[in-house]
Order: sequence, then structure tokens, then C-alpha cells
Amino acid sequence: MKKAVCLLSGGLDSAVATAQATKEGYEITALTFDYGQKHKKEINAAAKIASDLNIKEHKIIKLELKIPHTTSLIGENTPPQNRSPEEINKQKKIPSTYVPARNTIFLAIALAHAETTNSQAIYLGAHSIDYSGYPDCRPEYFKKYQQLIDIATKKTTEGDEIKIKTPLIYLNKAQIIKKGFNLDVNYKHTWSCYLGGKKACGRCDACILRKEGFKQNGCDDPLDYETK
Amino acid sequence: MKKAVCLLSGGLDSAVATAQATKEGYEITALTFDYGQKHKKEINAAAKIASDLNIKEHKIIKLELKIPHTTSLIGENTPPQNRSPEEINKQKKIPSTYVPARNTIFLAIALAHAETTNSQAIYLGAHSIDYSGYPDCRPEYFKKYQQLIDIATKKTTEGDEIKIKTPLIYLNKAQIIKKGFNLDVNYKHTWSCYLGGKKACGRCDACILRKEGFKQNGCDDPLDYETK
Repeated sequence: MKKAVCLLSGGLDSAVATAQATKEGYEITALTFDYGQKHKKEINAAAKIASDLNIKEHKIIKLELKIPHTTSLIGENTPPQNRSPEEINKQKKIPSTYVPARNTIFLAIALAHAETTNSQAIYLGAHSIDYSGYPDCRPEYFKKYQQLIDIATKKTTEGDEIKIKTPLIYLNKAQIIKKGFNLDVNYKHTWSCYLGGKKACGRCDACILRKEGFKQNGCDDPLDYETK
Repeated sequence: MKKAVCLLSGGLDSAVATAQATKEGYEITALTFDYGQKHKKEINAAAKIASDLNIKEHKIIKLELKIPHTTSLIGENTPPQNRSPEEINKQKKIPSTYVPARNTIFLAIALAHAETTNSQAIYLGAHSIDYSGYPDCRPEYFKKYQQLIDIATKKTTEGDEIKIKTPLIYLNKAQIIKKGFNLDVNYKHTWSCYLGGKKACGRCDACILRKEGFKQNGCDDPLDYETK
């Protein structure tokens, strides 16, 4: 049976990417990183999604990287609030929610798991249309990472493939959500909000883009929001 | 002042590479990874070297990556013993001491530290002459990693450099040791042995290559060995 490692954050995008991997027939090892996020809502969400998708192995990996806090996802800075979807998507600057080298670290650890589990693929839910300010979510970034992987491990230098798969890379949020509907993703179990409240805040960039994506699909997000 | 992140394992090579970085005038953040090695001798050695070199910041980063054990450096497999230097250097296969994606993970975390400390360089003691079986120690591997770094972070996409520096890449063990003499490295404080005994075993590949390197420099290794 073919195998894949999936980066499963607990957010909407990674849930859809992981569902796609299961649809393509891979036996999956899902990895969720506990890297000092402000809250554990996403990590709990990842466990629910892994269960929904009958993932064979779900590993929660705690990383204490001792990196000084420069992101609003860790520590005391607050992510921006109440911006319009247009404002968010048109921003030229890299957002304050950028985490230094996050995907580079996550993919490196996924690579080790792919090699040891004899997996042929690594799936992640990165996309580059909406909110494309993250340097480590762009197609050219994954292309360079693939070239590195091709010579980086015992497995790949001996001729076996480990391919980075980004099935959402050219989709916008509405298209990702639509794809997830077709894959029966239970969106109630996903968590996108940057804050860790009982309900999603509805005001941070992640909530705003998510709500807009459901709206464009002509339906409501099944998640509860503090503000609709 | 220019800054660098140095991967400091506590072994001989990384001590020389870090000493080279200090000589070149960098203010240094040294990173030592506790990734489940069989013993902590190397980690203790790293602390001594960091102190010798007046390193400003030395961080020991514990990684519980939950990777199945496929290396003889972790778990219960034993690394090979009593091979000749020629036998070790001529081996065609990737050695059993290969750790899946190790340098890919370490460099990714170093990259995050380089970005957040505003460092211009990442130093590591990799070399490709002796014992070149590790895919992630070859010049072409670092070239690909550099190409990835150049587009992977906020800092590098905004025009600042983060350069991988491998000052030992084309040196053999004897030449590395000679270089370290010129940099006043205290080799008594380094640890290369794959085992974690009170004294270095003198029989594993790391001990044998190290002893041979000192011999070629016409001097004794200051470390105590079980077998000379």
C-alpha cells in the first residue's frame, strides 16, 4: 500500500489536503506540531480530523525550538483584526502571523518520517492565491524544497521518491472549501481562528477569509462564531 | 556586529567550524540538539566548547521527533567497531549511523534562529572527504539548501543574506584537526565516540578516524581512550 505523511495542523486547509491524500489511496501518518501556539484548539481539531479520516497514525510533536518570538501567533503580540477580505488579500507585506522558517522545519521533520515509514509523499495544505504573503507557501518554494529532498536522504539518493504534494496550491479559499465538501470534510471539526476562544472570534484574518469562503459557496460555516 | 548561528554538536568538527566563525568575527548563537542520542557526552562537550570560545548564547534544543529508530546512534543497534580507516573511508553504503534528514532538520531550525537573531550566516562542521557516505554532508546538498533558504524566509526574500558556511567541507580529518590547532581548539573538551563510556571506546568509526587524524598530525589525541 502506498504511504504518505500529512502535515495536519487542525486548520481547514490541512484537513482538505489530508482528505485528498486518503482519497488518493495513501495510508497516512499525520503530524501535528505543538510549537508554542497561543492555544491548543487547533491541535484538538487535528485529532478530531484524524479520527474522521481514519488516519492510521497521528503523531503530535512538541517542539521547543527556543526561537525568540517574532510572530503574533506566539507570545503577546496580537494578530490584526476586522480587516476586509480584500484588504487581507491585497497586503504587500508579509503578515505578522509569519512564523520564521515554519514550513522549512515542518517539512524537514516530515521528511524524516517519510523516510522511516517508507512513504512516497508528503502532503500539506499550503496555498498561494489568497493571503500569499508567506514566502514558504509559494510554488517556487516547494519546487526548491523538492530539489533538496531529491538529494537529501538515503531513500531519495537510492532512487526512491518522496514527493511534496500541495493539492491546494492554486486554489483560493472558496475553492478549497468546495473541494473539502466533495471530500466530506467535517468543517465543524476544523479550527482556523488565530485566537483560542470558546468560539472562533470572527474578526481575525483567518476567520474573515474562512467566512468569506463559505459565503462564496453559498452556505454558512458550521463553526460557531462570537460575531457572525 | 555580524552574527552567525553555529551548529555545535560537541564533536571535533563542529568545534573547529565554530572556532572558525569566532575567528571571522561573528557574534555567535550556538545550537546543540538533544535528539535522543544514546548518551549526553557530546552535549556536555558542546557546553565546554561554547565556554572555551566565549559564545554569547548557547541553546540546547530538545527534539522529540517521534521518528522510528533506524539509526545506530539511537536505540539498541550497535555502530560498527574495529574497522580500519581505509575500510571506513572506502565504504560504498550509507553508514548505519545515518540519521534520517538530520541536517535538513538542524539547518531548518538554525534558519529560524538566524532569521530571528538577524544573523548573516549558519556554520556547520560537515565535511565530504572522509566518510562521505552521508547524503546530507555533500557540497551539492548544501548548494540546494542555500537555494531554498534564499527564498524561504522573510529576511532572505526581503534581500538580506543568510549563508550556509561549511569551512571544513573539502578537508579530511587530519586537515580539520590541523585547522583546529591553529584556532586553539581544546580537543580535550570535544567528544566524537559513538558510545557514551567514561573514556572514548577507541573502536568505533568515529574514534578510529579521529585517532588516525591526530596520528597524521604527528601527535596524540588528548582524549582518554579505553584502547589506544
